Amino acid sequence: MVTMRDVAERANVSIATVSFVINGTKRVAPETRTRIEAAIRELGYRRNVVARALASSRTRILALLHPYLEARPIATANQFLMSAAHGARERGYDLVLWPVNDDEQMSHLLAGGLVDGALLMEVQLRDPRVDRLIASGLPFALIGRTEDEDLPFVDMDFTTTIEQAVGHLRSFGHRRIALVTLRMRASTGNEPGWIMRVKSAYRGAMAAAGEPPTVIAVEGTSAGGRKAARRLSEDFPEVTGVVVVNEGASAGLVKESRALGRSVPDDLSIISAATTAELGEMIEPSLTVMTAPATELGRLGVNALIDQLEGVPDAPPNILIPCTLVPGQSVGPAPA
Amino acid sequence: MVTMRDVAERANVSIATVSFVINGTKRVAPETRTRIEAAIRELGYRRNVVARALASSRTRILALLHPYLEARPIATANQFLMSAAHGARERGYDLVLWPVNDDEQMSHLLAGGLVDGALLMEVQLRDPRVDRLIASGLPFALIGRTEDEDLPFVDMDFTTTIEQAVGHLRSFGHRRIALVTLRMRASTGNEPGWIMRVKSAYRGAMAAAGEPPTVIAVEGTSAGGRKAARRLSEDFPEVTGVVVVNEGASAGLVKESRALGRSVPDDLSIISAATTAELGEMIEPSLTVMTAPATELGRLGVNALIDQLEGVPDAPPNILIPCTLVPGQSVGPAPA
Repeated sequence: MVTMRDVAERANVSIATVSFVINGTKRVAPETRTRIEAAIRELGYRRNVVARALASSRTRILALLHPYLEARPIATANQFLMSAAHGARERGYDLVLWPVNDDEQMSHLLAGGLVDGALLMEVQLRDPRVDRLIASGLPFALIGRTEDEDLPFVDMDFTTTIEQAVGHLRSFGHRRIALVTLRMRASTGNEPGWIMRVKSAYRGAMAAAGEPPTVIAVEGTSAGGRKAARRLSEDFPEVTGVVVVNEGASAGLVKESRALGRSVPDDLSIISAATTAELGEMIEPSLTVMTAPATELGRLGVNALIDQLEGVPDAPPNILIPCTLVPGQSVGPAPA
Repeated sequence: MVTMRDVAERANVSIATVSFVINGTKRVAPETRTRIEAAIRELGYRRNVVARALASSRTRILALLHPYLEARPIATANQFLMSAAHGARERGYDLVLWPVNDDEQMSHLLAGGLVDGALLMEVQLRDPRVDRLIASGLPFALIGRTEDEDLPFVDMDFTTTIEQAVGHLRSFGHRRIALVTLRMRASTGNEPGWIMRVKSAYRGAMAAAGEPPTVIAVEGTSAGGRKAARRLSEDFPEVTGVVVVNEGASAGLVKESRALGRSVPDDLSIISAATTAELGEMIEPSLTVMTAPATELGRLGVNALIDQLEGVPDAPPNILIPCTLVPGQSVGPAPA
């Protein structure tokens, strides 16, 4: 069997340099790299990842579990995926994208021995994937939270985000402020943890302000947003400020409100939280948004998992990051 | 070493059933599955994927190469990724997401022996990744095309798509029709093959119509779209129809055209091609779009690669799929 030493000798470099090239962990001069790759090809040195995995019972492969096949039209999902994959690569790990839609597909993950650990997205309050991971003993980290906050996670700080959104609207004189959030299709059952946390943070902020809460949950689509606009107009005409935490519905909400003769922001002020500035800019008028820390959380999530796998001492505990306010043109003074 | 047979005996099922559960290739009754998973856990049967890979020198892992870390705010990227991952899983393969931004990171892929094959996205006309894959002998398939159309690929049929878009505008009486496409930032150098193909298809369609072409290339952002609107208004006021093949710029183009006092569609008709209907609906007025076959192409691309790996006879040749016209409110009769 051809070894890394054989490759090093053939290419006239150190074994460490060969390892850097193979693992992609450190920059190597292009000439040297080309020489090493030629040696690898000539000697037929392959499958070292596999051999190493068998020797160490570590594959250095991680799974990213993302449960929905039909991508919602959201701008943040890609940021999570790509930054997690990039963060894994920087630490010498590979990330398998795992579109687990049902409990069934978990078996291959847990029984196959392919991955050293799993990173979960779209975490539900009571998440059956988490139960199965705990039972199997496979290390994992969450981007999001279940009910049990003792599990390793990174997440958006919804309390701070919603308090800032409500505070921003109140600083413009708005008192009756509604929340438009996501309603999952009935078939998916259990709802993502963030929906509950957003509602709870919103209710807390309204209680602190001494105002009654108004929660409208719609699908994460333009059609859902239009529905929310009609409900606001018909059932809650006293509402002058809206916090949207439903990326896909933002545009429909604004369009239909205007179609119903309500000016944004003269009649209705709108903040869209947990989205991107680019998405806010697409809408007329450009939305005031609170941008999601998606790139940071993707990277921090994968780091939390790898720290756990490598037993890194003093690894940071659970991390919460709030969204960042980016003013647009959709918030103005409350109508008299 | 614990074998699959041991697991089958302990769980009182056939070896085939154990294999279905481990590989996730066939549905197994939940009770049976639970029993098999318990046996796997109790016997400590793990790493079989690794052992099998070493025995067969096949890992059943594929890499999806997607070169940009910073996700552009496009709705189709997720559809490609998720459908490719799902398609791989259905045939018993795993898909590693490989955010290769530079040539450097290819070494780990080619030398490490982790993957059986690679699926490339955002393919450039002269793509250095393809050269390295050919030199290494690793099987691959492309979602997109290089100059060399003899390589295995699936792609959008840009010729048909652009002809239909131009034909749709011409059927409303438009004669001067511009193309707004993507300009890559200078640093990325080589441009994606689709940009050249879109330009070429557009020039062909305009030549066939006997009209002069107008090509405007801008960044794939709202700012890019606004810039295109200003150029159209200032330099090409005779243009009354626009085909946009630049998903991220569509909204900015419409917004800025309206801000410049040009009504859509009364003064300017706009079709956005290679995007999603949801994205078209977010814009005011709702855009007439040609939806990208992203879900189909993600799946067909991964199938083309697996067919190659498995030597499937009569595997379909290179596949081209056009976009599908979905009328909105952004196309109307040409102004008199």
